[in-house]
Amino acid sequence: MMTERIAELLLNGQPDAKTQIQGWVRTKRELKDFTFLEINDGSALANLQVVVNTDLADYAEIIKGVNTGSSVEVRGVLAASPAKGQRIELKAEEIQVYGQADLETYPLQKKRHSFEFLREIGHLRGRTNSLGAVFRVRNACSYAIHRFFQERGFMWVHTPIITSSDCEGAGEMFHITTFDLKNVPVTEQNQIDFSQDFFGKPAYLTVSGQLEAEVMAMAFSNVYTFGPTFRAENSNTSRHLAEFWMVEPEMAFCDLAGDMDLAEEFLKYIFKYALETCAADFEFFNQRIDNSVLATAENIINNQFERVTYTEAIKLLQKSGKTFTYPVEWGLDLQSEHERYLAEELFKKPAIVTDYPVEIKAFYMRLNDDGKTVAAMDMLAPKIGEIIGGSQREERLDVLETRIKNQGLDVSDYWWYLDLRRYGTVPHAGFGLGFERLVQFMTGMANIRDVIPFPRAPKSIDF
Amino acid sequence: MMTERIAELLLNGQPDAKTQIQGWVRTKRELKDFTFLEINDGSALANLQVVVNTDLADYAEIIKGVNTGSSVEVRGVLAASPAKGQRIELKAEEIQVYGQADLETYPLQKKRHSFEFLREIGHLRGRTNSLGAVFRVRNACSYAIHRFFQERGFMWVHTPIITSSDCEGAGEMFHITTFDLKNVPVTEQNQIDFSQDFFGKPAYLTVSGQLEAEVMAMAFSNVYTFGPTFRAENSNTSRHLAEFWMVEPEMAFCDLAGDMDLAEEFLKYIFKYALETCAADFEFFNQRIDNSVLATAENIINNQFERVTYTEAIKLLQKSGKTFTYPVEWGLDLQSEHERYLAEELFKKPAIVTDYPVEIKAFYMRLNDDGKTVAAMDMLAPKIGEIIGGSQREERLDVLETRIKNQGLDVSDYWWYLDLRRYGTVPHAGFGLGFERLVQFMTGMANIRDVIPFPRAPKSIDF
Repeated sequence: MMTERIAELLLNGQPDAKTQIQGWVRTKRELKDFTFLEINDGSALANLQVVVNTDLADYAEIIKGVNTGSSVEVRGVLAASPAKGQRIELKAEEIQVYGQADLETYPLQKKRHSFEFLREIGHLRGRTNSLGAVFRVRNACSYAIHRFFQERGFMWVHTPIITSSDCEGAGEMFHITTFDLKNVPVTEQNQIDFSQDFFGKPAYLTVSGQLEAEVMAMAFSNVYTFGPTFRAENSNTSRHLAEFWMVEPEMAFCDLAGDMDLAEEFLKYIFKYALETCAADFEFFNQRIDNSVLATAENIINNQFERVTYTEAIKLLQKSGKTFTYPVEWGLDLQSEHERYLAEELFKKPAIVTDYPVEIKAFYMRLNDDGKTVAAMDMLAPKIGEIIGGSQREERLDVLETRIKNQGLDVSDYWWYLDLRRYGTVPHAGFGLGFERLVQFMTGMANIRDVIPFPRAPKSIDF
Repeated sequence: MMTERIAELLLNGQPDAKTQIQGWVRTKRELKDFTFLEINDGSALANLQVVVNTDLADYAEIIKGVNTGSSVEVRGVLAASPAKGQRIELKAEEIQVYGQADLETYPLQKKRHSFEFLREIGHLRGRTNSLGAVFRVRNACSYAIHRFFQERGFMWVHTPIITSSDCEGAGEMFHITTFDLKNVPVTEQNQIDFSQDFFGKPAYLTVSGQLEAEVMAMAFSNVYTFGPTFRAENSNTSRHLAEFWMVEPEMAFCDLAGDMDLAEEFLKYIFKYALETCAADFEFFNQRIDNSVLATAENIINNQFERVTYTEAIKLLQKSGKTFTYPVEWGLDLQSEHERYLAEELFKKPAIVTDYPVEIKAFYMRLNDDGKTVAAMDMLAPKIGEIIGGSQREERLDVLETRIKNQGLDVSDYWWYLDLRRYGTVPHAGFGLGFERLVQFMTGMANIRDVIPFPRAPKSIDF
């Protein structure tokens, strides 16, 4: 008999239908004439209630063997459930117990556990309601990202994880080596002899796939990356990970306005898809984790995002009458408190700030005609601040060379990046979205380590 | 005016329709009364032919400015094409040249280039017919993988890239560190003081996400990974990469037979999807790269795969009358020549070999009742050999502990992996597919470095 997914039975299962399920016992309630087992297979937040009558063959032995955490296969007949909040239940005719779970030692007995504790049992926490819901939403968002871009003819490109250059200057990098660390070879000049290392030169974990995505966009027009990126920053916060996934679309023949249009359409699409696919999980987040997540999602889906220039934003902040910790002055970067004021208090919806001062943005962002600002954009969302950052890229060879030099970088390191401007250059633009920030934002989870299955952070590399 | 993709126009464009395209000039042919431009935007192998009449405003200047490699935007009217092999062409009414490409220095002038040379200009090679076709097929396969699993309720799980253990013993690993390599701290016992490193212990690039995928399958039943994995092997061959993408599904409540069924269904699905989506690219491979790729694809799609045990396979090899370089004897691993004989000469279709001797397989593979073999499977394909490797996993705690000890590994390193057998263990199985091997196999490309945008190999880390 084919096993059916509990999500499917909860939705479409019909009374009197024979079925088979497989999953893990969440709870057992023994009554006089029967026992209730709540079974979960990870396909849905809700369990399927199994009713085991005492006349089942080997009843006593089976019920003794199943506790919270046990794995079972149940065959039986569906029936309309008299219980509140569930449409259907399963009357067991045959139960096979695959694996037991000792009452005394199984760490996930039925009670609330702190997220800190659950991180210590990262190999089991997916079996809880909250982490189960998070990972289902994470999966829905992941697939939605691919659907969004593929439906629009974008090519998924796999940019390299191992790289030889910190092209973006985006942050601290992890070093990759096959050297014996106790015995690193040095040259006669007492420099590390990287010619003897695996790649023949210093190698790092990538901080962004953007520059390589630009390469691909110059051949395939519209591309996107979706893969892991890394920061070796010693930031032990609830919003930083050393290893996280990033989405980076890159479009040829596109300017900043087109970039913003795509970013807005993209974010709305992902939210819509996740809400439709994981409705019960969102109800759970709204009730148990953060009672604003549904309102936030609706806000994003239903509003046209505000667009203001950085220069306007500075004026609005100065006129706000608010006292900020960090100064508000043209030329200084916006801080989290400023971003949140704009999105949450002033506009009460997502806002895109554009055209930042050239001094505070990366060298590859296109210089505007005023010579003072670049065609950058940051999308700010209520409750989280910056969720997307993007720009039109500098496509003019001479301007780009000057920008690279002005930042004290070596032009020869960028020979291939400059070649893209030398041969058939085009206006192009793209953006980056930190995937875990998105999932954190969506679900209302307080700590980013609880939205990725196996978080990596300073001194944290378990499982 | 909205830009249209050339792939779409070639397929569905109607005569007399106004349109706009953007792309790169592949060739220019100047005739007396007009000039032909072949434009490519990466969406299709074929170019769109643009006809530029001499009466176009600024004709001389425009035509002088466009050469192979230039980027242009063309607005005009579609017309049925009198030329052979193309249904439609575009009569230009307006041309904007975005970027020129110098005739003398642009490396991709219209002629055949060796794949070795193209690797040196990895930032431009996507603009050639062959690499363009490869990356379109790569994208189609990537998306097909997600569609296949998501349609079947599998959850995509992001297993960690940075890991603290060589759980599988699968190969040489890259070390990750933030130490100053010239000044690695040592303890009083003259050991490297990893407590001072970023993660507080030795850290590596993952060789497989399987063990973590098992964690997730024990909560969500059916999951898959699709992400980068790494080998620090000094193998400078046409079939090895230091960084490559791997697909690893893992199914709870699944045995080896179910694993094989899924693997066969999976491979057929990917081939079908790629063939349908990239028909012109496959025609190109068949004509220009390897004239057996279409036959190979049909062979895979239309045949039921052969299934034999290792023990039977050994007998078949011994009876073959063939002279092999490596010995054929029960207990020795199958070599590439043996695998190819079975798939290509004997069965003439993909074959799955099962139940290998326990000594030559990994510790996590389930011990069969004979005590001599494990529930492993290797899928062998004509022309390439092993394409998929999988197994039913050992779900019995005591047997698994013994297997770990027998391989000289430390049981305490596997505490969380063993917990999965301690609490609600279930029969489960999965497999791994090397993604670049698949694309190489499909396209007939001779070197695996030509099926990934930015290959990483010993002494090779450009771009």
